[in-house]
Amino acid sequence: MRFESVLINGDWRPAKSVGSFQAYDPSTGDPLPDAYPVSSWEDALEALTAGRAAALELAAASPDVLADFLDLFARRVVERADDLAALAHRETALPVEPRLRMNELPRTANQTHQAAAAARDRSWCRATIDTQLNIRSKYAPLGGPVVVFGPSNFPLAFNAAGGGDAVAAIAAGNPVIAKGHPGHPATTRLFAEIALDCLAEAGLPRATVQLVHHLRPEDGLRLVAHPWVGATAFTGSRAAGLKLKEAADRAGKPIYLEMSSVNPVFVLPGAMRERGESTAAELFASCSLGAGQFCTKPGLVVFLDDDAGRAFVDAARGRFEQPPTGYLLGRGLVDSLKTAVAELVRQKAEILVGGRELDGVGFKFANTLLAVQARDLLRSPDVFRQEAFGTATVLVLASDVGEMTAIAQALGGNLAGSIYSHSGGEDDGLYRTIEPFVRRSVGRLLNDKMPTGLAIVPAMVHGGPFPATGHPGFTSVGIPASMLRFAALRGYDNVRPERLPEELRDKNPTGRMWRLIDGEWTQADVQG
Amino acid sequence: MRFESVLINGDWRPAKSVGSFQAYDPSTGDPLPDAYPVSSWEDALEALTAGRAAALELAAASPDVLADFLDLFARRVVERADDLAALAHRETALPVEPRLRMNELPRTANQTHQAAAAARDRSWCRATIDTQLNIRSKYAPLGGPVVVFGPSNFPLAFNAAGGGDAVAAIAAGNPVIAKGHPGHPATTRLFAEIALDCLAEAGLPRATVQLVHHLRPEDGLRLVAHPWVGATAFTGSRAAGLKLKEAADRAGKPIYLEMSSVNPVFVLPGAMRERGESTAAELFASCSLGAGQFCTKPGLVVFLDDDAGRAFVDAARGRFEQPPTGYLLGRGLVDSLKTAVAELVRQKAEILVGGRELDGVGFKFANTLLAVQARDLLRSPDVFRQEAFGTATVLVLASDVGEMTAIAQALGGNLAGSIYSHSGGEDDGLYRTIEPFVRRSVGRLLNDKMPTGLAIVPAMVHGGPFPATGHPGFTSVGIPASMLRFAALRGYDNVRPERLPEELRDKNPTGRMWRLIDGEWTQADVQG
Repeated sequence: MRFESVLINGDWRPAKSVGSFQAYDPSTGDPLPDAYPVSSWEDALEALTAGRAAALELAAASPDVLADFLDLFARRVVERADDLAALAHRETALPVEPRLRMNELPRTANQTHQAAAAARDRSWCRATIDTQLNIRSKYAPLGGPVVVFGPSNFPLAFNAAGGGDAVAAIAAGNPVIAKGHPGHPATTRLFAEIALDCLAEAGLPRATVQLVHHLRPEDGLRLVAHPWVGATAFTGSRAAGLKLKEAADRAGKPIYLEMSSVNPVFVLPGAMRERGESTAAELFASCSLGAGQFCTKPGLVVFLDDDAGRAFVDAARGRFEQPPTGYLLGRGLVDSLKTAVAELVRQKAEILVGGRELDGVGFKFANTLLAVQARDLLRSPDVFRQEAFGTATVLVLASDVGEMTAIAQALGGNLAGSIYSHSGGEDDGLYRTIEPFVRRSVGRLLNDKMPTGLAIVPAMVHGGPFPATGHPGFTSVGIPASMLRFAALRGYDNVRPERLPEELRDKNPTGRMWRLIDGEWTQADVQG
Repeated sequence: MRFESVLINGDWRPAKSVGSFQAYDPSTGDPLPDAYPVSSWEDALEALTAGRAAALELAAASPDVLADFLDLFARRVVERADDLAALAHRETALPVEPRLRMNELPRTANQTHQAAAAARDRSWCRATIDTQLNIRSKYAPLGGPVVVFGPSNFPLAFNAAGGGDAVAAIAAGNPVIAKGHPGHPATTRLFAEIALDCLAEAGLPRATVQLVHHLRPEDGLRLVAHPWVGATAFTGSRAAGLKLKEAADRAGKPIYLEMSSVNPVFVLPGAMRERGESTAAELFASCSLGAGQFCTKPGLVVFLDDDAGRAFVDAARGRFEQPPTGYLLGRGLVDSLKTAVAELVRQKAEILVGGRELDGVGFKFANTLLAVQARDLLRSPDVFRQEAFGTATVLVLASDVGEMTAIAQALGGNLAGSIYSHSGGEDDGLYRTIEPFVRRSVGRLLNDKMPTGLAIVPAMVHGGPFPATGHPGFTSVGIPASMLRFAALRGYDNVRPERLPEELRDKNPTGRMWRLIDGEWTQADVQG
């Protein structure tokens, strides 16, 4: 059997494989024809060797060249939009329109242009200069390649070879070793092909983007812990993430993980009375986006078990009773969701709607609505801190505001959390009570809207406390902040002027880069 | 026997102890009279409980109140300078003058005032505002106490209860649980006493600073991994640091470690010809500072084995032959240094001077100069990546510049590294060859000076790649950057104006705080 090639050191070549895999069409449940290799450690080591050399070259490259590459890459991705969307659709069954073609692809190109702009602007590196002592510092490339593990659920925007992590790493001056998600290898391959063409045109090292389609788990652990790696970015399951984290941590290698989240939503009593029905509609829309396979899907909805709350339950039930419009991305996700529902039921959650795999072709699961009494949740909060990936959410009925507060206090780490409150201020007292507990448990706090939908803007935070991520001080979305994951803080003490990186020389290299000179942010040169 | 008290939740009370310890006078080797408790887990848990409550209070406190506390604390430390220096001298045998009284103590007060200024200024939190979408973010307190493990070698500036980590954590809005270093418990106690008085006067929670003198190793591991902890800062040995890192990492708790460094110095051939003798004097001065017990002590000096290089060896030998002027801080350090020298000798390093414990009273070790051929070092680089704490350094004689480059390529992670080069440019080619390898291995790169001596300025980087620290993106010295270790990145999406933290409201809370509004750094309000 002929396997698809891997991209190592600028060449598409047969993998030194130790196995093979095929992607699936989730709408039929059948494997797709192309066979992809599971790479051996030898492939990984060759990628590391080339990546380490490329890291030194990139660190010396002009940010303008990085930016030119990224802009070109973004344009080419748009030119190939139909092909990328078609491949992604075949491998994920996510709809071409509007999801892939109109939504995720433009977002992907947009964030790549933003990464280009940030590289060109240079302010992201936070150049800091103390003129009197000639001590200077900035964030700089890591000195080794960044390994990117792409997730299943965003074949374009989080693609291992062309998504947000990859372009943030490159914008910060690091080469990327993409470990593609085995659910969409053809999509990832096309990103890597486009990238390789653009690298050649931009004059960057051809090992700036490399791709292995799959690795044995033990080789993945070895890769993230290798001394030559700069850092790793992983988006995926908690189980896989924790193993990679342990391996990287032990080796002292930075690893940034996004590992699941339940994204609690609190609907305070006044808001429930005021707009319970529309909130139920928002909940269903948010939950069912991408067949519930969003990291920010609301998985826990907390409210009072009063008349308005019970009306909300009925309204939600009506929405969830519709047949699902999408597919789960893989067989494994069907099984995980089954298991998750069964565990919730074991802890006294009741299935109001769905809760089961659907018959017929493809990976289909009924829209699933569960309910639990707050006191039952509080008896086993751990189970309710587990993500149930898919169109599934748990309604939590609290007998009083004390129970709502207790749940806020018992939250685990989450990417996002939302509080709906009365527009006229009737909930303000309870908001003040609950907010500090929700706040400390989430990376992004929302008011009066559901957590899905990430705007690609500098202030976006897609991060949060463990185990939603591996570190609460970073974000994987939002440029330039997301680039800081792929940077080392570097000081220069008494270094001669001509040896300093341009960003730290007296003359502002762009004439408008922001720098912190003697305690003041300025776009000016160092005054002689 | 009566033990000294611990400070838990604002009260000095007897520890629930599981053992006791005494500090030593390093100049005599004898134990000091006071007995201190080893706290049980119960003490740690009480501190955590109080710290968690204090964390919520502090997060809601005005930065001006934090700043007032820190300024007051700094002033009181200066008022008690004689007492602090006397206690620290008794427990460490570091000279009162100039080291403790004139150098370390003013630095300690200075960095505390800087922390106050940073808290008051608020720019450190990098408020980022996207006005169109009403998405906002900033760094914020962690939501739990910061545990600070103080090191032995800076009883004042890195003191667990009053040093740089503690004040940076508080300036960022977090309470501190100090785990004092058992080498200087009376010094740490006095810092905690001063802090407690100042907290009361400033109106901050009394659990903002708590102190346990010592913990069993297993309780230390439990503490840094506890769900209520915000983060941990540790400065100390690699062995202890790695254990704490593993425990904290597994629990997903941020931990910042400074765990030893050899701080390589490259003297390029032109510089050696030009000023080898003065460089030897600088080397000895830097090596012997604090009896060699600086994290940034130069531990590896690389140069050509030519006439100038051999003259440098002779000059260095002359310097190191002086009797040592200081003491090692503890019995354990004498043993560690012995072991380190023996391991270096086993790997073909030759002892040129010293290499042995000195007879007589106190913890004394001869100034120690070793030499090794570059090719021998390259055969077992790991041994030469181990810190030998004390006045000890290894001269590395390279037979050509290729060997010098190979050593640069083989460096481990270090806090600092220096390159001496000819003032007229004769070494510039070799500098360009070697610099990228030194650069990627160190947090702070110096030219033409030794790595000891940390200026307390915003651009200072006291960090570096593993295993010098646990993460290359942070610094433990240099305000405000060091505060970012103790902060979570927090987003606000569609949050109502009056519910935003002051730093993210339309109106600039100080009138001069720097914020990134719609991509531009500005001190202005959001324009309506």
